[in-house]
Amino acid sequence: MPENAKPLVISAPEPRTLALIFTDDARRELHRKYEIVEIEPEALAGLAPDVLGRARYIIGQPPIDPATLDRMQSLRCVLNVETNLIDNMPYERMFERGIHVVTTGAVFAAPVAELGVALALNLARGIVDADLDFRNGRELWGGDGNTSARLLSGSDIGIIGFGDLGRALSRLLTGFRANIRVFDPWLPPSILRENAVEPVPLETVLSESDTVFVVASVTSENEGFLGAKAFASMRKGAAFILLSRAGIVDFEALMDAVRSGHIVAASDVFPEEPLAPDHPVRSLPGFLRSAHRAGALDVAFKEMGDMVLEDMDLMDRGLPPMRCKRAERETVSRMRSKPVSRN
Amino acid sequence: MPENAKPLVISAPEPRTLALIFTDDARRELHRKYEIVEIEPEALAGLAPDVLGRARYIIGQPPIDPATLDRMQSLRCVLNVETNLIDNMPYERMFERGIHVVTTGAVFAAPVAELGVALALNLARGIVDADLDFRNGRELWGGDGNTSARLLSGSDIGIIGFGDLGRALSRLLTGFRANIRVFDPWLPPSILRENAVEPVPLETVLSESDTVFVVASVTSENEGFLGAKAFASMRKGAAFILLSRAGIVDFEALMDAVRSGHIVAASDVFPEEPLAPDHPVRSLPGFLRSAHRAGALDVAFKEMGDMVLEDMDLMDRGLPPMRCKRAERETVSRMRSKPVSRN
Amino acid sequence: MPENAKPLVISAPEPRTLALIFTDDARRELHRKYEIVEIEPEALAGLAPDVLGRARYIIGQPPIDPATLDRMQSLRCVLNVETNLIDNMPYERMFERGIHVVTTGAVFAAPVAELGVALALNLARGIVDADLDFRNGRELWGGDGNTSARLLSGSDIGIIGFGDLGRALSRLLTGFRANIRVFDPWLPPSILRENAVEPVPLETVLSESDTVFVVASVTSENEGFLGAKAFASMRKGAAFILLSRAGIVDFEALMDAVRSGHIVAASDVFPEEPLAPDHPVRSLPGFLRSAHRAGALDVAFKEMGDMVLEDMDLMDRGLPPMRCKRAERETVSRMRSKPVSRN
Amino acid sequence: MPENAKPLVISAPEPRTLALIFTDDARRELHRKYEIVEIEPEALAGLAPDVLGRARYIIGQPPIDPATLDRMQSLRCVLNVETNLIDNMPYERMFERGIHVVTTGAVFAAPVAELGVALALNLARGIVDADLDFRNGRELWGGDGNTSARLLSGSDIGIIGFGDLGRALSRLLTGFRANIRVFDPWLPPSILRENAVEPVPLETVLSESDTVFVVASVTSENEGFLGAKAFASMRKGAAFILLSRAGIVDFEALMDAVRSGHIVAASDVFPEEPLAPDHPVRSLPGFLRSAHRAGALDVAFKEMGDMVLEDMDLMDRGLPPMRCKRAERETVSRMRSKPVSRN
Repeated sequence: MPENAKPLVISAPEPRTLALIFTDDARRELHRKYEIVEIEPEALAGLAPDVLGRARYIIGQPPIDPATLDRMQSLRCVLNVETNLIDNMPYERMFERGIHVVTTGAVFAAPVAELGVALALNLARGIVDADLDFRNGRELWGGDGNTSARLLSGSDIGIIGFGDLGRALSRLLTGFRANIRVFDPWLPPSILRENAVEPVPLETVLSESDTVFVVASVTSENEGFLGAKAFASMRKGAAFILLSRAGIVDFEALMDAVRSGHIVAASDVFPEEPLAPDHPVRSLPGFLRSAHRAGALDVAFKEMGDMVLEDMDLMDRGLPPMRCKRAERETVSRMRSKPVSRN
Repeated sequence: MPENAKPLVISAPEPRTLALIFTDDARRELHRKYEIVEIEPEALAGLAPDVLGRARYIIGQPPIDPATLDRMQSLRCVLNVETNLIDNMPYERMFERGIHVVTTGAVFAAPVAELGVALALNLARGIVDADLDFRNGRELWGGDGNTSARLLSGSDIGIIGFGDLGRALSRLLTGFRANIRVFDPWLPPSILRENAVEPVPLETVLSESDTVFVVASVTSENEGFLGAKAFASMRKGAAFILLSRAGIVDFEALMDAVRSGHIVAASDVFPEEPLAPDHPVRSLPGFLRSAHRAGALDVAFKEMGDMVLEDMDLMDRGLPPMRCKRAERETVSRMRSKPVSRN
Repeated sequence: MPENAKPLVISAPEPRTLALIFTDDARRELHRKYEIVEIEPEALAGLAPDVLGRARYIIGQPPIDPATLDRMQSLRCVLNVETNLIDNMPYERMFERGIHVVTTGAVFAAPVAELGVALALNLARGIVDADLDFRNGRELWGGDGNTSARLLSGSDIGIIGFGDLGRALSRLLTGFRANIRVFDPWLPPSILRENAVEPVPLETVLSESDTVFVVASVTSENEGFLGAKAFASMRKGAAFILLSRAGIVDFEALMDAVRSGHIVAASDVFPEEPLAPDHPVRSLPGFLRSAHRAGALDVAFKEMGDMVLEDMDLMDRGLPPMRCKRAERETVSRMRSKPVSRN
Repeated sequence: MPENAKPLVISAPEPRTLALIFTDDARRELHRKYEIVEIEPEALAGLAPDVLGRARYIIGQPPIDPATLDRMQSLRCVLNVETNLIDNMPYERMFERGIHVVTTGAVFAAPVAELGVALALNLARGIVDADLDFRNGRELWGGDGNTSARLLSGSDIGIIGFGDLGRALSRLLTGFRANIRVFDPWLPPSILRENAVEPVPLETVLSESDTVFVVASVTSENEGFLGAKAFASMRKGAAFILLSRAGIVDFEALMDAVRSGHIVAASDVFPEEPLAPDHPVRSLPGFLRSAHRAGALDVAFKEMGDMVLEDMDLMDRGLPPMRCKRAERETVSRMRSKPVSRN
C-alpha cells in the first residue's frame, strides 16, 4: 500500500501544537493511520492542488478562502482545536457541502468546573484569608472564625449557561445535594429537567441563589448583559463566580457590588489579559482571583488529541463525528469569543 | 395535666448552650414536650432525689457517679452534645441497665467534609498562592500557572477512617468519579464495598493515592501512628489532608515531609490549639492551614437540637434512638479525644 | 396582527394524529402560536404556492418531491413523528439548504427500557410460569421454586446499541449496580465510558453477559446479524432480550437456541406483525412474548407534542433544534426500519 | 497452638445448614479460624460445661435457658441465621451482659427488592396476561394492548417500612426517578430524608401513590393493620405489592379490593403457606402470585456465611459487630414473625 493511500490530514493547530494536544501514544496512532501535512495556518491556500484535493481533515483553524475550499473536494471536517470559532472560513458553504466544523472545547469542562467548585468553597469558607491570617498569627479558632461561613450542601445554586461546562459543574455538585436552577435560553426546559436541574428565568437565578456560576459563552447578544442591576438583585452575601468570558459582565459594576459588601465574587477571566499592574481588582477584598488558569491543564489539552482521533475514526467509516462539539449553522456567526493567544 | 407529667430532661450541655444547639422553634418544642431542669454539670449529684428519680434524659455530659446513677431509675439516655466521650460516668453499669449513651457528632460530618474537599481542590490548583501572586502583580496566566495543577476527577483518593465523616466525604466526591480506597479496621470490607469504596490496607491508601484524607478518630491504639515512614511511602507530590485529630499523626514528621517537597499538606487540627505564635507550620510553604474551623458552623450546631428531639421522641415511644450515634460498649473506653473547651 | 402573521405549520402526522401526540393544553398552544394547515400526506404537492412558500415546519413525514421542496423556501424543519425515516423526500438537498429533519422517537426510550427491565426480571425469576403454576395449584414454595432464579444486581449485562434506548436502559439499571458492557460501533468508546458503561466488542457482549439486551436499530449493514453462532456463544442459561427490531436477529436461530435450553429469551418484536396464529414461538417454553407493546403508551405519544413545540420554539428564535433527534446526513439512507402502520 | 486455642463456635443453624449458608471457601475459613461444635438445637443445655464455658459464638437460634446462659461465660454473640427472632432465650439477661444478638436477614433485601420491582413492572404492563394471550393467539398489538399500561418512571411510589428491604427497594428504583414517599414510625424523618425519600403519614402513602410496597415487619402492634379502609383510600387502579408478611394485611379485604377492580395487587406471602388448593386468590384476576420465593435464593443464603465471618472477626478483635443487624433491647419482644420451617 503506497504511503498516500492513508487519508490525508492537514495540521495547523496554532496556537496549540501536536505535541501539546496528543500524548506520545496518540501521536504515534495519528501518524500510523494518517498522512500528516504540517503547515503554518497562512500556508493553506498555497498547498499543491493534489494535497488540497486529497485532504480529508484539517486539524486547526487556518483561514480558508472560498476558492481554496472549492479545491478541497475530499474535505470532511475541520477539527478546531483552538476551540473558539473565528470568522475566517466560508462556514455557510461548508455546511452546504456537509463538511463538519467541530471544536474540542469540551476538554476544558472538567477542569474549569473543578476550579468553579473550588472557588465556591473558598468563598463559602474564607479559606484564603484564613490561611493568610494563620501565617500572620491572627487566625481565629473554631466558630470564632466561621461567622460568615456557610455550606454548599443543600444550598441554592444558580447556573447561567448549560453547555458542557454547566453540565460538568452540575455533575460535580451531585454529592452536595444542592438545589440547582439554570438559565439557558438556547436549551428547551425539558433537557434541563432531564439533567436534574430546574429551568428558571435569569431573574430567578440571580435573586434566589446563594452561589451563581456564570458559564455561558459570549454571543453577539449577551455582551455585558450582567450589570449593576443584576448584582443588586442578588441575595446579600451571595457569591458570584465567573468562569467563562469576562465579556458577559460589566466588570466595573461587579467590582462595585463586591466593594459595597453586597456580594462576594471570584473570577478566572478579566477584561484584559494580562491585566494592568494597577488594576483595582488586585486589591479588592471579597474578590478571589485566578489568572485564566481554570482550563489550561496539560491533561485537558492531551484529551483533545484523543477526541480528534475518535471522531476521525468515525468519519473514516462514513459516520458523523460524535465526540467533538459540532458548530451549528444557526449559531456559528453569533459567537464572539476572542481566540486565545496562549495555551 | 400537671406540669410534671411531662418527661423530665436534665440539661447540662456545656460547653454548648441550649441557644447554640437549638433553633428557636426547636427550643420551643423542647419546652413544650419536656420539663427541663438546667444545671451546671457539677451540680448533678446534688439534685433532689425526686428530680433524679424522674429524669428520663440528660442533655450533655455531666460527671455521674455510681451512687447518683443508682438514684436515676428512669434514665433512658445520655445525649452527649459535646460529642467527645470522656471517662466521667460508669458506662459499663449504664450499658447493663440499657441506658443509651449517644453523641451528636454526625452534625459535623457535612461541614468538615466540605472543608476537606475545599482543601484538596486548593492544593490541587494552588489557589491561595495564585491569589496572593495576583494581589502582588506576579500572577502567571493560563497554562504557565498550572505546571503543578491536577484534577481530583478520576484521581486516586485514599481515606483513612470511614465513619460519618468518611462517608460524607465519599458522598461529596460522587460527581468527581474518583477511585476511592479506604482503610478502616473497625468496619468489615463488605460495608465499605456497599458504600462504593474499595477496602484496602493502610499501606495501599498511603502509597497509591494522589490525595489522602485522614478522618479517623484517635483511639488508644492509633495515637501518632502516621509518621515519617508513612509520609515517605506516599506518591511524590501527593496531598495529605488532616481533618480529624492531630494526635493521629507525628506532626513534626508531617512538616518535614512537606518541607522536603515530597508531599503537600493541609490541616484543620494542630498539636496545640491555639498554636504558639512562632510555630514553624505558620510559614511552611506547601502547607495549607485552617484553625479548627472545619466543623464549627452554626448550622451544624443547630442540627444537634433536631437530632436530640428526634431521638427523644423515639425513646418516648419505647423505641431505640436512631439519629444520634450510640457509644459502643466495646469501644467507649478506647476513645481518646480531648473534650473541646470552645464551640 | 393578521392571522397569517403566525408561522405556518403543515400537519400530516399519519399514522399519528394531532390528538394522539398533543395533550389538550399542548394542542391549544400549537394553535395559539402557529397557523396549522392539516393535510393528507399525499396532498402536499398540491398545496397553493403561497402556503408552500410560507410553511416553516412540517409535522409528519409526507412524500416531498424535489420540485415541491424548491417551492418551500421558508421550510426549516421536518418534524417526523412517525419516527422511522423513509426514503420519500430529497434528504441530501434538504441538508444542503440547512433544513433539519428530526424524529421524536426518544419518547419511546423510557417505556421500552422499563419493559426491558421487566422482561429481564421476569426471565431471572420465572414470574409468568410461577403465577400459572400457582393458579393451577402446582406452585413450588420458597427455595424449591428458585432453582434457576438469579439476580440482576451485580450481574453482567450486555447492551447492543447505545442510542436513546440503550441509555435509558442503562439509567434504569443504575440502582442494580450491574456490570454493564456495551457494543455500539457508531459511538466512540469515550462516550460510552462517560456514560459509565464499558465499551467492548460484540463477541464480549454475547459471551460474557448474564443478560443481553438488543436495542440497536436495523441498518442496511446489520440485518440478521445475530444468528446461530451468536446465540451459541452466549453463557448457558443467559437471557436474550430483543427490544428494537426483529430484523436484527435470525429469528429461527433464536428460537432454536431457546428450544435447546441453551438460553432463555424475551421479545417485543417479531418477524411479522401481527404474527401467524400457528407461529411456533407462541408455544415455545423459555420464551417470553410481548406484542410490540413496549413503547406505545399514551404518555409517550403525548410527549411527542411537547418535543415538537420545544424545538419549533428554538427554531423560531433562530436556534437549532435540541430536543428531537436530528437525522444525520451520513446515516439517513442507511436506516431500514419499516414504517409503522399502527400506533 | 493446640486445637482448642481457637475460639469455640456452637453451630445450630436449623432450619439452615452450614452447607447452605457458607460457600465452600467460607466454610474452610470458618473451620480454619474456629473450633466448631455442631449440635441439634435442643442439645445445647446438655453440652459439657467446658464447651459451654468456652463458647464465644452461637450460630443459630437454639433455645437457651437461663441456667445454661449462666454457664456460658465467654459468650459474645448469638448469630441468628434463621433471621426471625423467637422468644426462646433470656434476651434481657443477655443484653445486660453485653451479649449481642444479631440476625442475617439483610441478605434477603436485594432479592426481595428485585422481585418487588419485577411485580410492580408486571402489574404496570400486564406482562403475565399478555404472554398468556400471546400463547393463545389472542394478543393485542401495540397501543391496543396498552390501554391500562403505565410507567414506574416519574410515578408516585409509596413504601411502608424502611428497614434493609425498604432501602434496597428505594435504591433499585434510583434510575426510575420516581417520587418516593415512606411511612416508617420507627425511624426519625431526617433519616428518611437523608435517604432521599420523603417521610409521610400512612394515609398519604396509601392515598397518593400509584404503587404501594409493603415491606414492614409484623409487630405486636401492626398485625392486620391494613384493611378495607386502607385499600379503599388508594387511587383507582393503583398497585398494592406485599413483600414482607401476610400478617400485616387483612387478606380477605385485599382480595375484595382487587375483585372489585379498585386496585391490582401482587403478593409473595400468604395467610397460610402452603396455601389451600382451593384458596380463591389462586384464580383472582388482577392479583399476581409468588409462592414466598422472593428471598430464598442460593446467593442470598451464601451471603449469610460471609456476614457471620466478618462480624466474628470484628468481635474477635474486641470490636462490636457491624455487618449483621443487632436485635434491639427495646423491640426484640415486639417482633411477631413466625419462624420459617423451610429455606
